[in-house]
Amino acid sequence: MNFRSDNTAPAAPEILAALSAVNEAPAAPYGEDPWSRKLDEAFSTLFEREVRVFTVASGTAANSIALASCVPPWGAIICHEEAHIACDECGAPEFYTDGAKLVLVEGDAAKLTPERVTEAVARNARGIHSVQPAAISVSQATERGALYTPAELSALGQVAKAHQLAFHVDGARFANAVAALKCSPADLTWRAGVDMLSFGATKNGALAAEAIVCFDLDRAEEIARRRKRGGHLLCKGRFAAAQLLAYLEGGLWLKLATQANDMARVLGEAAGPFLSLPVQTNQVFIKPGVEALAKLRAGGADFYDWGPPGSGEARLVVSWSQRPEDVEAMRVLLASLR
Amino acid sequence: MNFRSDNTAPAAPEILAALSAVNEAPAAPYGEDPWSRKLDEAFSTLFEREVRVFTVASGTAANSIALASCVPPWGAIICHEEAHIACDECGAPEFYTDGAKLVLVEGDAAKLTPERVTEAVARNARGIHSVQPAAISVSQATERGALYTPAELSALGQVAKAHQLAFHVDGARFANAVAALKCSPADLTWRAGVDMLSFGATKNGALAAEAIVCFDLDRAEEIARRRKRGGHLLCKGRFAAAQLLAYLEGGLWLKLATQANDMARVLGEAAGPFLSLPVQTNQVFIKPGVEALAKLRAGGADFYDWGPPGSGEARLVVSWSQRPEDVEAMRVLLASLR
Amino acid sequence: MNFRSDNTAPAAPEILAALSAVNEAPAAPYGEDPWSRKLDEAFSTLFEREVRVFTVASGTAANSIALASCVPPWGAIICHEEAHIACDECGAPEFYTDGAKLVLVEGDAAKLTPERVTEAVARNARGIHSVQPAAISVSQATERGALYTPAELSALGQVAKAHQLAFHVDGARFANAVAALKCSPADLTWRAGVDMLSFGATKNGALAAEAIVCFDLDRAEEIARRRKRGGHLLCKGRFAAAQLLAYLEGGLWLKLATQANDMARVLGEAAGPFLSLPVQTNQVFIKPGVEALAKLRAGGADFYDWGPPGSGEARLVVSWSQRPEDVEAMRVLLASLR
Amino acid sequence: MNFRSDNTAPAAPEILAALSAVNEAPAAPYGEDPWSRKLDEAFSTLFEREVRVFTVASGTAANSIALASCVPPWGAIICHEEAHIACDECGAPEFYTDGAKLVLVEGDAAKLTPERVTEAVARNARGIHSVQPAAISVSQATERGALYTPAELSALGQVAKAHQLAFHVDGARFANAVAALKCSPADLTWRAGVDMLSFGATKNGALAAEAIVCFDLDRAEEIARRRKRGGHLLCKGRFAAAQLLAYLEGGLWLKLATQANDMARVLGEAAGPFLSLPVQTNQVFIKPGVEALAKLRAGGADFYDWGPPGSGEARLVVSWSQRPEDVEAMRVLLASLR
Repeated sequence: MNFRSDNTAPAAPEILAALSAVNEAPAAPYGEDPWSRKLDEAFSTLFEREVRVFTVASGTAANSIALASCVPPWGAIICHEEAHIACDECGAPEFYTDGAKLVLVEGDAAKLTPERVTEAVARNARGIHSVQPAAISVSQATERGALYTPAELSALGQVAKAHQLAFHVDGARFANAVAALKCSPADLTWRAGVDMLSFGATKNGALAAEAIVCFDLDRAEEIARRRKRGGHLLCKGRFAAAQLLAYLEGGLWLKLATQANDMARVLGEAAGPFLSLPVQTNQVFIKPGVEALAKLRAGGADFYDWGPPGSGEARLVVSWSQRPEDVEAMRVLLASLR
Repeated sequence: MNFRSDNTAPAAPEILAALSAVNEAPAAPYGEDPWSRKLDEAFSTLFEREVRVFTVASGTAANSIALASCVPPWGAIICHEEAHIACDECGAPEFYTDGAKLVLVEGDAAKLTPERVTEAVARNARGIHSVQPAAISVSQATERGALYTPAELSALGQVAKAHQLAFHVDGARFANAVAALKCSPADLTWRAGVDMLSFGATKNGALAAEAIVCFDLDRAEEIARRRKRGGHLLCKGRFAAAQLLAYLEGGLWLKLATQANDMARVLGEAAGPFLSLPVQTNQVFIKPGVEALAKLRAGGADFYDWGPPGSGEARLVVSWSQRPEDVEAMRVLLASLR
Repeated sequence: MNFRSDNTAPAAPEILAALSAVNEAPAAPYGEDPWSRKLDEAFSTLFEREVRVFTVASGTAANSIALASCVPPWGAIICHEEAHIACDECGAPEFYTDGAKLVLVEGDAAKLTPERVTEAVARNARGIHSVQPAAISVSQATERGALYTPAELSALGQVAKAHQLAFHVDGARFANAVAALKCSPADLTWRAGVDMLSFGATKNGALAAEAIVCFDLDRAEEIARRRKRGGHLLCKGRFAAAQLLAYLEGGLWLKLATQANDMARVLGEAAGPFLSLPVQTNQVFIKPGVEALAKLRAGGADFYDWGPPGSGEARLVVSWSQRPEDVEAMRVLLASLR
Repeated sequence: MNFRSDNTAPAAPEILAALSAVNEAPAAPYGEDPWSRKLDEAFSTLFEREVRVFTVASGTAANSIALASCVPPWGAIICHEEAHIACDECGAPEFYTDGAKLVLVEGDAAKLTPERVTEAVARNARGIHSVQPAAISVSQATERGALYTPAELSALGQVAKAHQLAFHVDGARFANAVAALKCSPADLTWRAGVDMLSFGATKNGALAAEAIVCFDLDRAEEIARRRKRGGHLLCKGRFAAAQLLAYLEGGLWLKLATQANDMARVLGEAAGPFLSLPVQTNQVFIKPGVEALAKLRAGGADFYDWGPPGSGEARLVVSWSQRPEDVEAMRVLLASLR
């Protein structure tokens, strides 16, 4: 019963099959193949407006290249102190931006609020001596599995606009968010003022396919250049494109995310009083104490502790591919703690 | 009859099959899976000594990360003026190295010679005001399809050692080189003084799998860090590892490269007097004049012109996947020019 | 009565005179002149061991180049959240280091403690995904005018050593610290484990002369290269060297700093209950409330508010050049608040 | 008789005196002092239009920050293969631009021609795979002491405009050029299409004062930010400003440059048939052979050899401060070679 991360999941069969389908003949390299050329259209349809899409090999690359394309080296990127870009990318955003600064703010459930952002802007807007606030970056769903509603995003979008900040969304688990919120991808992005989205597929069924979805078309050329210089323009780009097309085809992405979210909810209900946060997507945070966690592990569960050593908190991540019998066994284990 | 580039080829069936084989169950992320863990061993066996291997998504990433790991920002990388790192990577080496300088030298068939390198070192070793010669980078096979013999590489390796330069090989077509030279990969690398090899697989049968093979083990940690920051540490690393393992398995890599080289030789013989260079690997450079090239295109051939506009030169690249009937048709077309 | 900052002070007459003295004849450029050549010796004498000294044009340059020479791009620099390098250099350390990360910690009087540093190391040492703790940077005196004793520095030095961190001191006001602590510069630096010191002179009597004092001789070549690339190797380096030599000559630096510290103490005594922090060097932090600050200004005092708007706190900085009558007038004004 | 470089010269008395004049009282820091505030106006008058001026500590900083402010990281800067930015700045332009590429072209007397530039643009404009031509940089006077006429600069300016390239002039010896050409600074810069000028004063009488003169006002904010991050925004900026104001005052800059040029012409006439290039400014290139150079040195002359070892060529640089008796002695020595 492995609930360590959704990145341990295999690839969805539909996506693996798509690789074979595009492999039948030679095709033009570097994004000039028919599949890569379909990407802009497919995502424009999905987002109900014209967008430009750039595939990259990892979420770290998507986040870093997107941010570098809307933040000058002397810019500040305001994000949550638990954000993936701040804690888990070994400084990749600083590398790609040539040394921009991540300004970290606190917030429940790893969420930013307009108040915190406004305060961070004020604190960092002291002319030439401080960095220049240049972007907001939020994760949707957050590192704590929480969601921003369209209204919450719009409020952040207004703060961004008021202070001339770019607005970036790290959507490593965007599918889980859309599936849970049951709203339009457009409402969670450009309609709320979002300029750039890191659209994740790898955690939810792809082999290795992430995309930068660019709503600010003036930035597209810069993204293309930065992607190339990062080594993320693939000569056989069709294999990345095919994964993304299959991922969207027939709503597969939402089907897989819904599976994961539903199973996580089951675990959340079982954990009941031990939940540290409400379960909104496919991550379950529990805080039953150190001994209880040991008991879960003794029962065959595998997962990461969370927070500082000895906190007695843990994270369970449920992927689309989780076996129902494992989820049921975990449910029983969790229920036994009560 | 598409002879534009070997990067238009599909993936080899064996490699595609390997993806399915590793997809049956969850696996640890970020290179901790069983397949990724086998890579060091598989390449250590291949190279007859301990090596460390790092998969990345493109040859540009392999070259740039390898170079950044052995050259300081104030270093000079001595390479041929037609080198891929100099002409085709949009400045990625400069980006990853934080601004090292590529010092370009001339040479027949896109090859470096010890004399040219020595001269370039002397020209750039003027203390604090000039950059500091820090590495040699050669392509094997070169951008003109030519080969360095083990003796030639050793001579360059000695120059490198004498001037404390790192020695990097861009092996985007390393398989074609090894297949043609019929010598040990060790003889073409560390035995000749090579510190880092960009080991390509994508052009010769993989979907997207390149590797940095690191012979200077002290540099491994730095490569790991730079790979992460470049966004090239994949969470589902097993899919990249599986491609490389299948590529090596049973000598598939040499089988595919030999196929390509053999077909190129056939075209080279047909081109006869119009060859601009002897055919050593899977690239055929011909210079029959502008009108003859038009005639080839009228006959159904697709390829890139080479050199400045109006030069009447062209490049034909033969991949492992070329259909025999296409090669035969091309042979006839070429022969008809004489 | 201008107490805004010691950087508004003129240059000391002795230092200005030194410029004329070195101007009598041509001299070798780029640090090969007799005065530049004396610097290493003069500072080695001062610090009671062999050091290497590099002049630069600003404290920002000194800090950034020093840090870049002991921290890899993927490194973390642990510093106080109010540190000059974090708040007042527009991201220069990130620029020079190619994107290293400043990890901010809290602490009274802008001071780091071993406990906070240890905790920050633990929080950021999570393998390849997090940046790698690589340096501690402290300001002596701090941004709040406070001091580290030799024992406190040694304790930090031990933490640094235990975790293989470089140890950097931002000594923009190092003279004020040495003058106040009345101890050996050696005790405040290398004897406590310090590897690099940004030695400031500009705030305390020079025109524009800061120096990187390098105790880790292996790093000297890297500093030289980074200085050159930053544009801080001056062709007429003797003018910077002459300022520093005059600054040290006959203990001028300590004489000027003592003057400033003494006058600050007078103001601190006058401020009495309104002091937010004890006065240790030449900075006086008072918190008499918004109205009282308005009263001071109405009385002719010029200074910066401190902290968030409306905090009622202010900073008075006393330079060596403050006129006694201004200090007396300020003393009377402060006393009138009680 | 030291003819090594004009950077060995002392500072002009007028400029040294200006330092004392601004030192009488405290002044606002970071360019807010009265002298710094006068700079824009003084240079706007000089250039007959509105400009923005930024002082920095070295020509390397001026060139690098100017270029970084008009070239993206993926840009190419077209310059002469002997350009100071290419050969003598240890890669500073690459550092400040985050890895832009210098594309080197040949040309007599270290000069660029429209033809060479056009050819370099064509060679490097191959879409996403190559860097993007983004700027032309020329030196006025060149590294060989040669001059661009206003007409020549305009022709380059038109090429720049046609290809959307920024146009930068390295004016380390701009004074010598203006003095020799006897034309308006405006004609040699913005009227010819120049966007950025590195305006040198250090080689011609200042202690350490260079300025970026920015004609493209939209770039000013970026220059300010990059200057700060490079550590070149000085807290006591008035000392740099005062040097520049004194340099311009009453045409001092042209008086000093004329002195140097005139003395160089005398040496050039003496060298007669041994001149490798006509003497246009304050540099004299002679090629009398190895033995003749030894003879000059035996006669007491000090200078640098030029070109590859054994070339028998040398460079004599004449500064404003050269003693007439030294010039006369050198004249006699040179004449004796004939």
